[in-house]
Parts: sequence; C-alpha cells; structure tokens
Amino acid sequence: MNPSSCDYIIHAAWLITQDHERRVIENAGVAVSNGRILDVGVWDDINREYEGDELLPGRELLVMPGLVNAHTHAPMTLFRGLADDLPLMEWLQTHVFPVEQKHTPESVYFGALLACAEMTRFGVTTFCDMHFMAADVWKAVDDSGLRALVGEAIFGFPNPSYANFEEACIAVEHLIFKHHGGSSRIAPILAPHSVYTTTPDMLTTTYQYAEDNNLKWMIHLAETQAETAECVQKHGKRPLAYIDSLGCLGPRTVIAHGVDLEPDELDRIAKAGAGVVHCPKSNMKLASGVAPAPAMRARGVRTALGTDGAASNNTLGLFTEMRYAALLHKAHTRDATVMDAQSVLDIATCEGARVLGLEKGTGAITPGSPADIIALDLTRPNLRPCYNPVSHVVYAAEGGEVCMTMVAGEVLYKDGAFTRIDYPALLDRIRTLGGWVREINRGSA
Amino acid sequence: MNPSSCDYIIHAAWLITQDHERRVIENAGVAVSNGRILDVGVWDDINREYEGDELLPGRELLVMPGLVNAHTHAPMTLFRGLADDLPLMEWLQTHVFPVEQKHTPESVYFGALLACAEMTRFGVTTFCDMHFMAADVWKAVDDSGLRALVGEAIFGFPNPSYANFEEACIAVEHLIFKHHGGSSRIAPILAPHSVYTTTPDMLTTTYQYAEDNNLKWMIHLAETQAETAECVQKHGKRPLAYIDSLGCLGPRTVIAHGVDLEPDELDRIAKAGAGVVHCPKSNMKLASGVAPAPAMRARGVRTALGTDGAASNNTLGLFTEMRYAALLHKAHTRDATVMDAQSVLDIATCEGARVLGLEKGTGAITPGSPADIIALDLTRPNLRPCYNPVSHVVYAAEGGEVCMTMVAGEVLYKDGAFTRIDYPALLDRIRTLGGWVREINRGSA
Repeated sequence: MNPSSCDYIIHAAWLITQDHERRVIENAGVAVSNGRILDVGVWDDINREYEGDELLPGRELLVMPGLVNAHTHAPMTLFRGLADDLPLMEWLQTHVFPVEQKHTPESVYFGALLACAEMTRFGVTTFCDMHFMAADVWKAVDDSGLRALVGEAIFGFPNPSYANFEEACIAVEHLIFKHHGGSSRIAPILAPHSVYTTTPDMLTTTYQYAEDNNLKWMIHLAETQAETAECVQKHGKRPLAYIDSLGCLGPRTVIAHGVDLEPDELDRIAKAGAGVVHCPKSNMKLASGVAPAPAMRARGVRTALGTDGAASNNTLGLFTEMRYAALLHKAHTRDATVMDAQSVLDIATCEGARVLGLEKGTGAITPGSPADIIALDLTRPNLRPCYNPVSHVVYAAEGGEVCMTMVAGEVLYKDGAFTRIDYPALLDRIRTLGGWVREINRGSA
Repeated sequence: MNPSSCDYIIHAAWLITQDHERRVIENAGVAVSNGRILDVGVWDDINREYEGDELLPGRELLVMPGLVNAHTHAPMTLFRGLADDLPLMEWLQTHVFPVEQKHTPESVYFGALLACAEMTRFGVTTFCDMHFMAADVWKAVDDSGLRALVGEAIFGFPNPSYANFEEACIAVEHLIFKHHGGSSRIAPILAPHSVYTTTPDMLTTTYQYAEDNNLKWMIHLAETQAETAECVQKHGKRPLAYIDSLGCLGPRTVIAHGVDLEPDELDRIAKAGAGVVHCPKSNMKLASGVAPAPAMRARGVRTALGTDGAASNNTLGLFTEMRYAALLHKAHTRDATVMDAQSVLDIATCEGARVLGLEKGTGAITPGSPADIIALDLTRPNLRPCYNPVSHVVYAAEGGEVCMTMVAGEVLYKDGAFTRIDYPALLDRIRTLGGWVREINRGSA
C-alpha cells in the first residue's frame, strides 16, 4: 500500500497524547494535515503509512498538546517588573492603573504581540485575554498565529478605550462582528473586570451578550478576602452569590482566580457548570491567598490554569505555572499527593480548553483534533534521564526547552525563529515603548 | 595611556554587582584576569582601560554573579522523576533508598557530572553536595570546572560506599587529604545525613573533623515535624537542642532545610553564627512544611538557598528556586512585601557563599573577587522590557537564558556548548544508566 500524503509528520521519543485514556507513547509518530491531527501511533506505523515533511528530523523530542493559558492580560508585558513585592490594591492603584491610563492602540498592540511571542516561545498555543482596546489585542493575536479568546475588559470608569459603558458596548459589538466574519482561531469573550469595578447593569448586559452570541463570560472573582468584605458591605452578599443573584452564574461563567471560595460555593459553581481559572503564581506574588484548587477538583468544578498578566507573575509560560499549581497545594495542605502531575497537566491542556468552551479535542493529540502541538528538546540536561514524561513537563521543564510550536497545523516557532513575528523589529518597538513607560512611571511615582 | 591587558572583558547591558552597595549598573563593563575580577565600571571606561578577549560581543547581556546552590545531592539526577507526588518518608524509603543502594562509582560519577552540566547550563557556579562515594562526586566536579563543597554523607547503616562508620571516616579523611593537595575550587564539608540516621558518636566525631580541619559541617535538620517528634521521643530533645547538647552547634554548622524551627531556636542559631539552607521547592514537593525564612532573616540567621536533589525538586537551577523563595512566603504570611527580590538574590549569591564559608567576595562582582560570572541573553521575550534587572532574575528568568557561565575566570559554557564536558558522550552514559535504574525500580516496586 502506498503511503497517504499529509502536511507534516513528527517523530516523538515520547508522546503525551492527553487523550481519554491519557496515553503516553514511547517512540511515537503524529501525522498532521489541513490544520488537524490526522493520525497518532507508534513511529514505525506512522512513518510507513504517511508521507509528509518531517518536522525536526533526527531529534530527541517530547511531543505534547500546546498549553492553554486561560487567563492573562497580554498588553501588560509592557509593565513586566515595573513594581514588585507589593500587595494587590497598592500595586494596582499606585503602579498599574496610572500607566494603563496612558495606553494607546500602538502600545496595546505591541505589548500583546510581545506576549504572543513569549507564549509561542514557551509552548502556549491558546490563551484567553482580558484588556481594554481588545481590538488591538485581537490584531496582535491574528498576526501571531496563536489561538485565543479576546475580551474587552469592562470597567465602570473611563479608560483610553471608552468614555462610558455605551462606548464599551460598541467595542464589544465590534469584536462580535469581527468574529462572525473572521477566522475560527480567535473568538470574543465577555469580560467584565470584577464586581468592585462594575455596576450590576454592566454585569447583566454583558452576560446577555454572552447568551445571545453563545460566548463565554469571564470575571475576576473572589480574588481576595478584601474583595469579599467589600462586596458584602456594598451588596449584602459574597461575590459569588452577588453574580448569581444577577443571573450571571451558569455554564458560560468563567471565574478568574476564585481564591476566597467556601466549600458550598464550590458546589454551587460545579452545579452551575461554570469554570474557574486557577492562577497560583499571581495569587502568591500579590499575597491574595491560596485558591482551594484541590477541593475544586474534588467537588467537580471545571478548572483551568492561567498566568494572569506579566506585571504580577512575571512570565506567561505555563510550564513553570504548572509546577506552582502542583507544589503550592502540597505545601498548603501538607499532603504531597494532592495536585499530582497528571491532574496539573490536565488543567493546563484539555480541561483548560473545556473551561474556555473550545472545540472538542483541543488540548489533546488525538485524530481529528486541532493540530496545536509543541515539541520539547529532550537533550536538555534538566530533562535527563526520562522515566515519566508527564512528571518531566510538570516538575522539570522550564519552558525554554520548547523547540517547535504549531497552531492549527501551522509552525509558528522552530529552533529559535518565529515564522510570523518579525522578532528583531518587535524588540525595537518594545525598547521604545519601555522608555515611554519608564517616563510615565517616573512622573506618577 | 595604553590599555592594560587582561584575559576577558564583558560588556553588560545591565550588570548586577551584588557588591556592598548592591549596585546595578546600566551599560557596564567587567574585566577579568587570572581567575579574578580585575575591574568593574561603566563600559566606556572598562573598554578604554583594558584590552582582552571580549566575551559575546555585540550581544545584549545581563551580567551577574554565578549562583550558589548551597544544598544538593548531585548523583540523584539519575532518579529525576522516578517517583513524584509522595510524602518524604514513603518517597525516601520505598523509592530512593532501594535504588541508591545499587549505586556504583560509575553511576555516582556520571549522575554528578549530569548535575554539573545542568547547573553550569542554568548559571550555578558553586554548589554544596552531600552524597556517599563523595570521591566520585569530587572527580565529576573537578572535571566539570565548577566550584563546590563536597561531603561524604554519613549514615548509621551500610551503603555502597562503606560498611561501617570506621570505613566512612576513611572516606572522609581521603577527601581531606585530596583537599590539602589539590585545587582551591573544591573543598570537603562534613556531612552527617540527619539526627535520625546517625548515632551521637557520628555527629561528634564528624564535628571534630570539621574543627580540626577548619571545615563546615552540614546536616539535614528540622526538615519535618515528624523528625522533631521522633527526636523528642528518642533523645528527649528537639533536633536543634539535640545537636547543641552534643556540641555540634557553632559557626561551622550549616542546617539544611530548617523547616520546623521555633522563634527561640532561630535566635539560638543566629547567636551560634550557624547558617541555614532554605530549600523551598523540595519542602513544598514533599509537603514537609514551610521553613520560616522571613523570620530567619529578620532574626539575623545567615541564610542560603538550595535545590536539594533532583529527585525531589526536580531541577538544580536556582533561578526558578529564587522565585519559589520569593513567592512561597508571600502566600504563607499573606504579606506581599516579604522576601523581596533583592533579599532573595542575596541568599542565592553573596549570602549563600558566606553560609558555605567561601572566600570573601564570592557571590559578588567586585574587584578582587573570584571570577564566577554568568551572562543572560536579554533578548528572550520573557525578559522584555527591562526596568529592573534584579526583578527580572528573580521573577522572570527561567534559567535557560544563561548563555555564558564562567568559574574562576574559565568559561565553562557558552551559547549551547560546554567547554569541558563532552555532552553527547555524557547523554549516552545517562541513557544507559537510566535503563539500569528503570530495571532496579521495577524489581523493587
């Protein structure tokens, strides 16, 4: 029998499929065609049955699904390292908000493009973003080739994107319009910032947009005990009960952070079919508290993993983030068996994709699923020897080992080179924009 | 005036000196000669005053002192990822001890050499090791070019290195003999494993060796509450009081872990002039508890940073370890200002060097200090933009950005290539040894 033709074949020393059986295959092959996984199996079979460009031949690769960064603010890369070692509210109000108010479409675009470059470099193939001037984030995602949900962040005060809620709605409708006419790689998400920065009308109106257009609705919720206290004082309810009372808790709801949640609230979230994005590093850095991630999973809450923005993390890669999810809860619960490597990999891939409502099969390497694939160079000293590749990606990889990132069957990064992004030109723009941020920060400090 | 000749000059976009004033210099230069830092200043001055090979010319570099990994077990790289998600005692007794009992001089040597390759690759220039068959670790360090303290781990039960304490003492004396005749890059350390694996005689005898030969004495101590309980039951004292009652608490004493320590014990350690090596990732992974690192520093305890072995971390790089030290305590104390970036960098460089009793100036880039220098590639997307390089090395670097590692003025790694280690040959040996470990583990499981 003659081999079938396909776009690419990849030879994996180890393949982590994240399929239903969570198969890990040694000496495996993957065939990719028309943006999708065509076939998966042992290398000899794939190599015999398919003919296509072999990606990175002769290399010792760990191949796995691209990672899903379910909560970030891409343009905030511009503020990476501008202010550290501060609590959430001081950091936000004294350092972040003042510079954010000076954003222009250009700074949002290039900040987001830098975020896309970083995520591509570190093996993130899908992310979910929340920021104002989202149309410019959208353009950066489109140019980068990544997969993303992009939301216009809705605040109850003016910002460089809109003067009032009516204008914000126009921005939202613009994204919805783009979506209907555009690529399937990018979709809008409704993104009211939080209960403490919005009015009830903003929450219900944005939720209605989500309902009408079959979209997800993401909100920062229960990030700190202070937020809870303020919500109880203002609305007589804890944050979760408050959004529920407004009709905003359902399968479309995605809660970013979910730190200050009680067991009965976890049950309520699970029953509603809503999701939570766990952001361990950001929560640790801002001393926001420890989200009850093991309890979430035990109670059936759909859980994803996110980095939050680069100003509170300070990186957007998910390899190190997975390790924080694994280690933080072991320390916090004094139980070394919680958040084991496989569970953590799940929330960073297939489960994360499910929380974001992505097409079935996303986050797994299985026939028919979107070809969002990454390859790690297994010859790095920190990945030797290799007994269990799932352990390695959670406990040993730093992210820099990623030597190939593919989204929808297109190679976006290979061995130090970006295929779409003009990286030297991007660095030049970031250098200029960094100088501008430094000036603003000097002025406001 | 003609320029003076030197071995190397390095042009740093940012230089972190870690000198007494903790100066950070933009557009700086470093001159290196005869294994030492000759001069430090702004680039134009250094470039005018010195003539030498420019390392990595035309590159945008962050230059800083090499990192000090103050507690590890280098040969354990061979067990990286063999068993995860288990508590300390089960992990140690069911998985680690059985395979360790099969070690040969060859497996110890190549495991340690892999550790040296990993640390060199990730910017560690000095480490402190504790393992049996330490002479083979010593040989690996010697071959790798790194700086290290190497200790023969002393246990009260037979192992592949010695059948009894008398034989263990011969191994210790052998290291002391090597030291007196050998290179200044490597020195012995006395290394009784712990209070629960040794007899009082082993502790006092090894401490006497340290006194007689002006060496440090390191012990795993107060790693878990279970250790404390066992010590109280067996000896009627908590671990710190126990070693103190034996005369083993003094300026030579270095405590690895120090998790279960009370405030008055911290004062006792500070008063004795002893040091503690904080190992946050290993403690988190094994759910051993959270060491009181902010209180240690507040009470004047000399503190260092260590990774522990690769079987419980699972990496030996200190960049990610620094971030754990910074973030864990923010989460644990609910205070985002504790363990700020500068403090954490201190324990990973100059303070760590002081805890290990290294020559003054080690861990800093200052005229006269040993030329242990690393350079990071600042064009990586996760390091853009750069407002504060100290923030970047603690909160944004993954370690893979290291593009040059120098110890005692000798370049050991540059742009993907090791100068001393035959890396492909090492990978071959590790592949074979990994197969052997897999077989043993299958047999013992």
